[in-house]
Amino acid sequence: MLSHIKIVLVETSHPGNIGGVARAMKNMTIENLCLVSPKTFPSADATSRASGADNILSSAIIYDSLQDAVADCQVVLGASARDRTISWPVLTARECAEKFVTGTTSIAKIAVVFGRENSGLKNHELDLCHYLLRIPCNSEYSSLNLAAAVQVVCYELFVASGQRVENTIGDKGDESLATMKQMELFYEHFQQTLTDIGFLHEDKSQSIMRRLRRIFNRIALDTKELDILRGILRFSQNHNK
Amino acid sequence: MLSHIKIVLVETSHPGNIGGVARAMKNMTIENLCLVSPKTFPSADATSRASGADNILSSAIIYDSLQDAVADCQVVLGASARDRTISWPVLTARECAEKFVTGTTSIAKIAVVFGRENSGLKNHELDLCHYLLRIPCNSEYSSLNLAAAVQVVCYELFVASGQRVENTIGDKGDESLATMKQMELFYEHFQQTLTDIGFLHEDKSQSIMRRLRRIFNRIALDTKELDILRGILRFSQNHNK
Repeated sequence: MLSHIKIVLVETSHPGNIGGVARAMKNMTIENLCLVSPKTFPSADATSRASGADNILSSAIIYDSLQDAVADCQVVLGASARDRTISWPVLTARECAEKFVTGTTSIAKIAVVFGRENSGLKNHELDLCHYLLRIPCNSEYSSLNLAAAVQVVCYELFVASGQRVENTIGDKGDESLATMKQMELFYEHFQQTLTDIGFLHEDKSQSIMRRLRRIFNRIALDTKELDILRGILRFSQNHNK
Repeated sequence: MLSHIKIVLVETSHPGNIGGVARAMKNMTIENLCLVSPKTFPSADATSRASGADNILSSAIIYDSLQDAVADCQVVLGASARDRTISWPVLTARECAEKFVTGTTSIAKIAVVFGRENSGLKNHELDLCHYLLRIPCNSEYSSLNLAAAVQVVCYELFVASGQRVENTIGDKGDESLATMKQMELFYEHFQQTLTDIGFLHEDKSQSIMRRLRRIFNRIALDTKELDILRGILRFSQNHNK
């Protein structure tokens, strides 16, 4: 039912949590589980906590990097409890569900990414995310158990899917959204162009590129728009050559 | 804030689940835990899974019967996954939250009761409940882990209480959004640059610029982001000059 959604766990330490996540997903009809460098997997603990959701575990796909895990997705949501110094577009779990499940015109492939039990997601992983997803909670005790956090998010997505109104007219036309892979190639091209034209300097390139990612990630470019922008980059590189 | 709510667990088998419940409650500012004839309590497993919510465990009150546990309550909600042959008034978790938390003028004391891991609540226990509380889920795999079920219910109650710790960060951070005037200047600059680098040709310029406006209008750029983009345009214009 929610086959366009995948749950991605990054460097999970406790295999029991992976099992708990599998159960939480299946309870809410979400079946695609991706594991980025899990500490211990497969594991008897995971299978035991999965409690009948073993099919989710056995079909889980393991990746070496988050980048690979989300390469085929058009929308990446990063679960985050921490307040970040860098301001990032933030949506609550419910807002995400309403924005990307209830309302979507053409169904995008969506990844919801959960970080390490103790330290969450790193900045270079957040760079891959279009939005931070926040679960409203006690500000003085805000760290949910990993499987519990996945349960809340999958629950919201499931509830939203029941409220889905099929609607074929959107403001985006028929073009399909760019995939993460296409966006990565765009950012590489962008960075190269900015270096070529003398705009980017070694020392500041990381923070500038991060800002540019924040800008372009939130536009949700379609493939035609991406073609135009890449055309501009090519001309920019060749200008006056 | 949610001091008028208590969570009641009936004959829980696995002490780890009691710990998970304590954590889930505290995450959502609910602190009153009642245990009816728990199999093993206190327990190191419970404390370990509580992960900093030990105060909930140490102040938990143990009862011999559900009747005693809910004696001081005005509303009793029985969590139930099973379809019952006997028809009972059923509300979803969200409906319960909206009915008994958001709307209440005089706050009633509310118990949410969760049954045994394997067999739920018995009929004589359901007799004590005003409503069954149902968590929407996969009809073919509907048994949530106990702590996960408590997490979803407490989350809904918390959201309904409006006690969101939601910062006002919205989507955009602190920078002020660009004005229409600033955006017009940006588009002029953009168009001039695209002409300079040979990308724009007279005949197609209108449709390309319209597409670019659609792209950048939907991001709601802030002034700092606009500065960066205009900087890029300047470098692009001067490249190789």
